[in-house]
Amino acid sequence: MLMELRASATYELSVETFLALMIEPALAGPEHRVVDERLVTSPTPFSELDRDLYGNPRRRLVAPGGTFRLEFVATVDAVPNRPIPPDAAQVPPREIPAEVLVYTLPSRYCQSDLLARMAEGEFGGIETGGGRVLAIAEWVRRHVEYRYGTTDSLTSAFDTATERIGVCRDFAHLVIAFCRALDIPARYVSGYALGLEPPDFHGYAQTYVGGAWHNVDATFEGVRPALVPIAVGRDAADVPMLTLWGRGRLVEQSVEVREATSPPAPADSGQSSANPHESP
Amino acid sequence: MLMELRASATYELSVETFLALMIEPALAGPEHRVVDERLVTSPTPFSELDRDLYGNPRRRLVAPGGTFRLEFVATVDAVPNRPIPPDAAQVPPREIPAEVLVYTLPSRYCQSDLLARMAEGEFGGIETGGGRVLAIAEWVRRHVEYRYGTTDSLTSAFDTATERIGVCRDFAHLVIAFCRALDIPARYVSGYALGLEPPDFHGYAQTYVGGAWHNVDATFEGVRPALVPIAVGRDAADVPMLTLWGRGRLVEQSVEVREATSPPAPADSGQSSANPHESP
Amino acid sequence: MLMELRASATYELSVETFLALMIEPALAGPEHRVVDERLVTSPTPFSELDRDLYGNPRRRLVAPGGTFRLEFVATVDAVPNRPIPPDAAQVPPREIPAEVLVYTLPSRYCQSDLLARMAEGEFGGIETGGGRVLAIAEWVRRHVEYRYGTTDSLTSAFDTATERIGVCRDFAHLVIAFCRALDIPARYVSGYALGLEPPDFHGYAQTYVGGAWHNVDATFEGVRPALVPIAVGRDAADVPMLTLWGRGRLVEQSVEVREATSPPAPADSGQSSANPHESP
Amino acid sequence: MLMELRASATYELSVETFLALMIEPALAGPEHRVVDERLVTSPTPFSELDRDLYGNPRRRLVAPGGTFRLEFVATVDAVPNRPIPPDAAQVPPREIPAEVLVYTLPSRYCQSDLLARMAEGEFGGIETGGGRVLAIAEWVRRHVEYRYGTTDSLTSAFDTATERIGVCRDFAHLVIAFCRALDIPARYVSGYALGLEPPDFHGYAQTYVGGAWHNVDATFEGVRPALVPIAVGRDAADVPMLTLWGRGRLVEQSVEVREATSPPAPADSGQSSANPHESP
Repeated sequence: MLMELRASATYELSVETFLALMIEPALAGPEHRVVDERLVTSPTPFSELDRDLYGNPRRRLVAPGGTFRLEFVATVDAVPNRPIPPDAAQVPPREIPAEVLVYTLPSRYCQSDLLARMAEGEFGGIETGGGRVLAIAEWVRRHVEYRYGTTDSLTSAFDTATERIGVCRDFAHLVIAFCRALDIPARYVSGYALGLEPPDFHGYAQTYVGGAWHNVDATFEGVRPALVPIAVGRDAADVPMLTLWGRGRLVEQSVEVREATSPPAPADSGQSSANPHESP
Repeated sequence: MLMELRASATYELSVETFLALMIEPALAGPEHRVVDERLVTSPTPFSELDRDLYGNPRRRLVAPGGTFRLEFVATVDAVPNRPIPPDAAQVPPREIPAEVLVYTLPSRYCQSDLLARMAEGEFGGIETGGGRVLAIAEWVRRHVEYRYGTTDSLTSAFDTATERIGVCRDFAHLVIAFCRALDIPARYVSGYALGLEPPDFHGYAQTYVGGAWHNVDATFEGVRPALVPIAVGRDAADVPMLTLWGRGRLVEQSVEVREATSPPAPADSGQSSANPHESP
Repeated sequence: MLMELRASATYELSVETFLALMIEPALAGPEHRVVDERLVTSPTPFSELDRDLYGNPRRRLVAPGGTFRLEFVATVDAVPNRPIPPDAAQVPPREIPAEVLVYTLPSRYCQSDLLARMAEGEFGGIETGGGRVLAIAEWVRRHVEYRYGTTDSLTSAFDTATERIGVCRDFAHLVIAFCRALDIPARYVSGYALGLEPPDFHGYAQTYVGGAWHNVDATFEGVRPALVPIAVGRDAADVPMLTLWGRGRLVEQSVEVREATSPPAPADSGQSSANPHESP
Repeated sequence: MLMELRASATYELSVETFLALMIEPALAGPEHRVVDERLVTSPTPFSELDRDLYGNPRRRLVAPGGTFRLEFVATVDAVPNRPIPPDAAQVPPREIPAEVLVYTLPSRYCQSDLLARMAEGEFGGIETGGGRVLAIAEWVRRHVEYRYGTTDSLTSAFDTATERIGVCRDFAHLVIAFCRALDIPARYVSGYALGLEPPDFHGYAQTYVGGAWHNVDATFEGVRPALVPIAVGRDAADVPMLTLWGRGRLVEQSVEVREATSPPAPADSGQSSANPHESP
């Protein structure tokens, strides 16, 4: 499926500021193929690419004080999202690969230690494996109300387990916390998705069953078509779209995702010198 | 039923200290009749009786620095605890008496506002009235594990809703929070009970249905026999056995409750000048 | 000083709803004299007056489903707010009146138990009495940034002690928590004040030193002129302007406070049948 | 300085359990040289060595249900701990190495985002660099009381900033959170130290100034001699001595650290078949 992504944001920076961006579809592999991609940052062009602790590519740049604007446009050929096979087997902890093991432990927003009894009580009676993950996702979808503006950057899975309202990030954190509480590796993915209302960046979970990572999006009944990942981490704290060392104020942000029926429109290079970069 | 109560505690006070005690069975009425009661505080005798915000009698005294010891012994003729009639009607908010209305609002350990969706989700489908209260108590009893030493004075109903482990105080707070979230007045009672293991002061809930307060003790399957109330409040924060303005350290505390088969033993007046007081 | 107050709010109620209002200047005494007052609620007229646990007058009414609007207009002759005398003596706990003692204990938003060491560390070296209260207020004013929209109904003194940003309610909670941690009775007051930007209901603290309650408003350098109290309680949880048992949505709210130079304008009785009531 | 370390623990496992151990001095380099080391786990011998996300060596093993005991004994030649040079320069964010950048971000127990204003208020006026880190450590040492048994695994830097009591872990978390809030990379180290009372595993901070990591131990006035690191991470959540997937109960644990004056005593191989392993 051909998808067109567009994301832009404007910041006011009081002084020269170091920034790191994670905004581009970045996990290679079967999930998607980037057909065309353009990132424009102005007035500063992109400077350097590195990788974070989880292996996510990250763009580093230094922007002068004043208005900083970024615009990203891409066309992606995405593989349709697949459901988790209910019979995918849970991997015994001892067989979990070393680099996956970290995703069984509690993290800032996914306090799986505190949710252990609740997870056992709600899902302990369901057979392990893909079916148990599906039951967790379904429980979260049915028990938590999706409503914009009800939660904030302090809200954690521990809160959502009781407050039962939130946005995609909160849904993902609760799925992750329940999975980890039952020794199922689970991680957070920031990305792009079709069909969000209002349009925004998306956050969803991935769980490791049957020896592979599978998408879990509890904000959607059934399987949300076409999820395009940007970065993975233990929870949303690890994968901010933009990190800013110093003071800055977000003035405006917008995201658009749609099925591409025509070649993507060019980025608005307006007052700045355009500075296109291809992703690796 | 004739019950014998004995409670004692020893504190080390670094300086002269003002204390307030709520330790004596104090609500008159049908629930119990105090046959015999003795309170010994040493070295300081009891000084003054007043009432707190909720109408609970409270003994005030000033103890010199050093070891402060209190011992309370009573024989009480308790009316057997009765179950809530399942058909007791929920009182519409507008008909709730002015002095009861405060028990529909959130308090420090019973954040009914935050538990509103969970309460609605779990109990919204059950007919209102006594039956709904019984369903709440049964849910708490089945979902929360009773285990000593797992929670502390910071633990609230919000925590217990997810952590699902605790002691009598935590059980009561969760029952209260769920009830208030559904507009059922509910309050916390500190008191004495038969059959606690290990023996200790007890905490349980009361809910207002059918125009009267009814005991709810979710730590017990069925109806715990003979609850003897000391004081009521919005939650445990309101009804401490002893409040101490200043620094002091609890050295030892013990509680005994049993069916009386003989007249109560005399208080140990040991090294102090005994100072017996009858409750009003 | 002659002040003109005007407060209005509109709610959408999905069903017939029981409401309680605390919106009128209500503490008699030297602080103010109500010259003229009008409360219009539509479509439902005011029905009943009672008192809450703290003695605050409270108006109860039942509004039908649909739009509910209230408008309150008053002219008040307010006594200028006075500073706390620095030499007002701290009242030893044992001499605190029974009805004041509750204001030395922790409450939902003022966890004075958790702030005890911080309070002792910051203010323990300052002489007790009015001067210590003034030092607390000054500390809060200097260390906490006043900014609208940064905190919400979950924010407590415990949070503000570290986050150091908030609105009047947060300033008051922190002052109260520090005072109680040092055995100084302190309570929360909702009311009206001159000079708020943007105009809104106000919240401030009162502390009990020298045998009387004194206003403490840490959002203002020096002494804010003319505070008109509505209700007092342990913290903001006790004194909501409007409590609503059931579902309802606030559509609009506005508050105006100014020095009166002319008789107050009549309430807008618009589409509803006007229903004026005088306060007692 | 020659140090002798001994750590042992006993667990009751209800079923066959997968475990990961991080207990051996593991960072090579100038800090220490392991002279002799023996790890005995019984009944199961050590099985596999891998590395965690932060590069810490980790021993994996599968223990049968029943009593599981581990004993570790080592002699280490430790380089004396050095103070941070006050004139070590703060590294501008843009020059922080990619693998260090993660240590500028908030984590579960070190919520540097929430402490930003407090950090700026307390330390913003102090010149950047090593001197600022020393000021932070000194502030924590003076404002937080060290007392065993006052905090637990839920306690975070956000709590300690206000509660001002705790153990080494809490001291380290607060130092780390303040440093990160001021863009100074800071991480948590679990390890062994001389002079702890009671003897236990130790936790302390490392901060990155002047282009290198430096130890910061706010539980000690001046410079604690000889710190031997086991593992590093964002906070204590990352470096547990033992992680256990499944149910298990710690029965006993002990740690001994002393200056070695003689060769280390042999491990007690008691009822189990001894199974010595050398670290790499």
